[in-house]
Order: sequence, then structure tokens, then C-alpha cells
Amino acid sequence: MTSRGVAILGSTGSIGTTALRVLDRHRERFHVTALTAFTNATLLAEQERIFSPSFVGLVSETEHSEWRCGEACLVEAATKPDVDIVLNAVVGAAGLKATLAALEAGKRVALANKESLVMGGHLVADAARSGHGELIPVDSEHSAILQCIAGRPRSEIRRLVLTASGGPFRSWTREQLGTATLADALRHPTWQMGRKITVDSATLANKALEVIEAHFLFDVPYDRIDVVVHPQSVVHSFVEFVDGSVLAQLGVPSMELPILYALTYPDRIADSGVPQFDPVALSPLEFEPVRRADFPMLDLGVAAGRAGGAAPAVFNAANEQAVALFLGGSIRFRDIARLVESALSAQSAAPGGSLDAILAADANARRHIQELSGC
Amino acid sequence: MTSRGVAILGSTGSIGTTALRVLDRHRERFHVTALTAFTNATLLAEQERIFSPSFVGLVSETEHSEWRCGEACLVEAATKPDVDIVLNAVVGAAGLKATLAALEAGKRVALANKESLVMGGHLVADAARSGHGELIPVDSEHSAILQCIAGRPRSEIRRLVLTASGGPFRSWTREQLGTATLADALRHPTWQMGRKITVDSATLANKALEVIEAHFLFDVPYDRIDVVVHPQSVVHSFVEFVDGSVLAQLGVPSMELPILYALTYPDRIADSGVPQFDPVALSPLEFEPVRRADFPMLDLGVAAGRAGGAAPAVFNAANEQAVALFLGGSIRFRDIARLVESALSAQSAAPGGSLDAILAADANARRHIQELSGC
Repeated sequence: MTSRGVAILGSTGSIGTTALRVLDRHRERFHVTALTAFTNATLLAEQERIFSPSFVGLVSETEHSEWRCGEACLVEAATKPDVDIVLNAVVGAAGLKATLAALEAGKRVALANKESLVMGGHLVADAARSGHGELIPVDSEHSAILQCIAGRPRSEIRRLVLTASGGPFRSWTREQLGTATLADALRHPTWQMGRKITVDSATLANKALEVIEAHFLFDVPYDRIDVVVHPQSVVHSFVEFVDGSVLAQLGVPSMELPILYALTYPDRIADSGVPQFDPVALSPLEFEPVRRADFPMLDLGVAAGRAGGAAPAVFNAANEQAVALFLGGSIRFRDIARLVESALSAQSAAPGGSLDAILAADANARRHIQELSGC
Repeated sequence: MTSRGVAILGSTGSIGTTALRVLDRHRERFHVTALTAFTNATLLAEQERIFSPSFVGLVSETEHSEWRCGEACLVEAATKPDVDIVLNAVVGAAGLKATLAALEAGKRVALANKESLVMGGHLVADAARSGHGELIPVDSEHSAILQCIAGRPRSEIRRLVLTASGGPFRSWTREQLGTATLADALRHPTWQMGRKITVDSATLANKALEVIEAHFLFDVPYDRIDVVVHPQSVVHSFVEFVDGSVLAQLGVPSMELPILYALTYPDRIADSGVPQFDPVALSPLEFEPVRRADFPMLDLGVAAGRAGGAAPAVFNAANEQAVALFLGGSIRFRDIARLVESALSAQSAAPGGSLDAILAADANARRHIQELSGC
């Protein structure tokens, strides 16, 4: 068995540290060849000591005696010859260039950076085609869909149904939502994740990003991608086929499986990372409609996806900026949607044909939010 | 596209009539080449008029001007040169010979006659191997498992979890079960089926037969096949893989999909037979442990499966005979398990190496039940 080299972009974050735990259990199949982090030099140094990668990069610093520094280290790590698989777990728009470079270099990209597809879906598809790269999702919903599709052709898929936990505010009234605090938003009922994605789960912006991601990953039109609230987060998504059959992938919420599956796809290897499935303990599994009017970020994001061009990038950038303001205590929960809606209106027809156009739209959206919020 | 010839053994029963409804929607892909029925000559004649098969057989009669008669018509229909797929929907032990003959003739057998595998699992496997025949399950649980496995190798499967509706007596106390009538037993909560299988669902004998069937179909040892009660009958079964991931197949209870899938496997074709999947309308999905002590037929059957040899055939034959007595009003609900247990004790080590040995064990078991019940 050949051991495959893995680069982890974002190795000190939630996905990165989970991935290293998974890789540590499978050292005969995979070896860590590159690690990059944004700011956490202490943890990065410890990871370097344990996994002995041939490349270490730190984005936030400009100089370091042994590591590569600055944002360029991401692309460098993603394209090294001894790297077979790039786990892109960078948070936000910064991950796009590394995804494109890795695909153009013919790597498998295990994609936890959904912004790559949201911002540059067509560019990513082009890069995968021209470079013979391979894009495998790490999001639990998209991993579930990939597992359900299991190699069947696109023509057999009728509909995708993404599940959403509903976040901490699932059962809050509209009035209560007006008083939601940061602490409330960070109290996710089923998933332990980073702060930005946890807020996105509370607004349902995360589900909008996932719908756009699913559209590009599986080439399914938006009117065949539905979302259903599933408070237990045990069913990770459904695929409906043309004969009416529905497959679902299930399990206790854990990112270990989607990460492992992205590494081993289409094969599966024995692993102990996921607790034994016990349907009785997990019963009941409930499903509710999304309260779209009370959580406007879902429809805003999907509408941006349908609009195409740079609109999804505008949605994503405006959301990133607004969430940063919310995390910093500068705006209230409801302001996130208000600000994003304004940014989308201001740039409703931004072109998205090139990486430069997308990055320009991204920058404009961020500026718009800054100005509007007065921060 | 080549149209494939389909023989339906048991065309006037519940599965048979459903299959003809499915085939009627897909006349460009399939044509009915043979129909056989047990006794219902009127419906068989009507089916002949609509589908114009080249062969019609009636098991219960000895003579008919245009049709083949007697039990031999099953094997004849199953091996005709213009037959590509044999849907074996014969009820009970009578289906085994036709399954073996069809597989030896290199046909695809869409198997609704689970007794074929329960009685002669090894013989069926041998016949498929030597004749290059193909065995595709039609039971909803096994179809679900096949759909979840989707071509992945056996080595990636850790466990099968079959779902059971629990039948009409799921929430009856042990005391209430002592008073259960035939009318109670025939009141199945989620599935419309024939009378024999409906009683088997009430005793859970059906689930024991399905465990044995799954053992032979998917080559999974008995200690890796579990059963969970799922009152809604929406999840048709689960497959747990070695990496801990679980896939499930779901849908409103309907045999149209498993029948269609057995015809088109591994492909899927667009079909309207299954209502659109709506997880909100189907919520909640509940799972409960099986009350094994109160429904002893499950453990009796699985123990017979583990014992091997002709024990599963004894279990099946004793159950068929006991259920016939129950349907005829001669014994009470609880007597079914008592009689079957006695038959298994009397023939605990019956050999099962050959078809003759199995048929002898089958006949002995039936005789044992007759004598014991005094009927």
C-alpha cells in the first residue's frame, strides 16, 4: 500500500486538529507532508514536532527562521510535489486561491473551505478539469450526499435535501430573535465548531453557503436542492433519485468521518472515530420546515446563488464582514441579514468571470458593510 | 435499448399485481413473457389479455385448454429462453425449485420468495455461481440494503440493521398478546400485504426470515445483523460501514420501488410509483428495541439460521403450517411460537446438504405441527 502525502491548510483550527487526530490513527496509509496555520504558532510547532511535515507555513507572520510565512504559503503547501491530498480547512475567502492551485496541480482537494466553491464555483470546476484535480467535500452534508450518490450518474439524481440543525435559535420567536446576543448565537445545540461557522449556523447563512456548494459540487440546479430542519443532526442529508428512492447518511455529529471519507474516497477503511450507531439512542429523528421569513439569510444566499456571477461572492464576503462585526460586539444579530441584504442590492449584477472580478466584488462588499455599519 | 423479458411467478398476488402495475409504466424497457398463478384463474386470464405473455401457468389446476398446469409450470416459466428476469413472488416453500432453476439457467431472479434463501441458502448460492444467474432482493429491507451498499465490496460492511414495523402488536402487553385474535393480527399498521406475511409480521417470524435472507444475500454473519423496531416503516434498513458511517434507504411504504429496482439494478429509471419524499410529513422517525421475550419467533428463527443445515427450513415449514392453522382458526396466536419451537426441538440437527434433505425436513416439520396441533 502506498502512503499518500497530505497537506493540511488550517491545521490549528477545528477541522485541522480533528484531521490530525484521524491521520494519527492511519499512519500506514497517510503521512503529513505540509501544515499551515493562520496565527497559532504554538500549536503549529507542536504539530510539527509530532508529524514531521516537510513544509510548515504561518500566514499571519512575515518572517520566521524555519517556516514559510505570509498568505503565499497556502498555495505553496497546496502544490508541493510530495502532496497527494490537500485538506483545505482555511476559514473564509482566503482559501480560494489554494483550492484553485491544488486542483490545477492535479491534487485531490478535500474541501472544508466552502467559500472556494461559493465564490468561484465555475473557476474551481475549470481548474479541476484542466488540472485533472479532484474535489471531495468535507462538510458533513456534502459528504453525506457524496456517500449516498456512491458513483451513480448525475442523470439518476432528482433532488438533494440538505439537513440543518436549525441552530440555537430554531424555536425562538421573531421577537426573541431581536434580543439574541453573541453568547446565545455561540451556543450551538449539536455541533462543536469554530465561532464564525457557529454564527452562520444561527443565521442559516451557513446553509445558504452549503446550497451553493452543493449546486457546484453535484451539478444540481437550485430548484432541486431543498433544506429541511433536523434538530438532532443525525441525518446528514438526503439524496432523492429519479425512481423516487431516497438514501440518507447518518451518524452522531462528528467531523472525523467526513474527513476520513474525503481521504479514502471512494473506498472506506476501518476506523474507530465515530461512535457505534444506535438508532434507539438517537430516536426520535425529527424534521421541520425552515422558518424562512425569520431566518432571511437562507433565501438571501440562495437568491445570490441563482443570480450567479459574483453575487455568491458578495453574499459570502458581506456575511464574513458582518459576522466579524457581530463577533466583535459592534452589531446585533439581526443586523447581519440587514447589512448583507444591502450589500447584495448595491452589487446585484457584479460580474464573476475571473478571479480578479470575484476578488474585487469581495472587497467591495466588505467595504460596503464597513461603511454601512459605521465601524 | 433492448427490452427485457420478465416472468412473474405468482402474478395474481400482492407482489405480482404490483409488479404488473410497475411494468405497465415501463413497456419500452420490459415486456411480460410469462405469468403464473396459484389459483386465481379469473385474474390470470385478465392479465394474459392485457400483457400477452407467451406462457401462462396455473399451479392449482391439473388441466386447462391453453395454459400449462401443475407445480412444474413454475420451473418451466422460470427457464424459458425469452425470459431475462424472473420475479419470484410465489408464497412459501414452493418457490425454491423455480429460484434454483432460474439461476442455473443464468437468469436474473428478482426474489420476493424469501423462503428460497431461508430453506436453501447454500443451494441458491451454488446455483447462482454455477449458472451465472443473478439474485436481486425484492423485500423492501433487502432492497434498501442493496441500495445502500451500492456496489461497495463486502469488506467495507460492518453491520446490517433491519427495520421492523413491530406489527399490530408492537405495544401490546404480554397479557394482551394472549388474547390476540386473527382479525387483530391481520391489522398491519403500515404495510398492505398478503395474509400469511401479515401474520408473520405480527409474530416477527417475518423478520427472522429476513435476517436469514440477509445473511445469505449479503454474506454477513448473524452476529452482525441487528433488528430495530421502527413503527413508521419509512427507513427500510440501515447499513453500517467499517468507517462507522451509516447509510439508510427511506420512503413511504410501497413495494413499487423495490420491484422496479430489482428490474433495473444497478441503474435507476425515472418513475412515478413512489410519492414524493417529504421528511416533514413523515416526522418523527422513531426506533425502539425489539421486545424479544414477548415475540419469541425472532430469536427462534435466528437461532435456526445460526444452527444451519435444514434448521431454517424446519423453522420456515413449521411456521407456514402453524400460520395456516392460525388463519384457519384452529390455533391461537401464541400457539404459533409454541408449535414452531417444538418442531425445531424435534429436528434440531436435520441435515441440509441437498434439496432432497431440505424438502424432507420441510415435510417432517409440517407433519410434526399437524400431529402436535391435532388438526
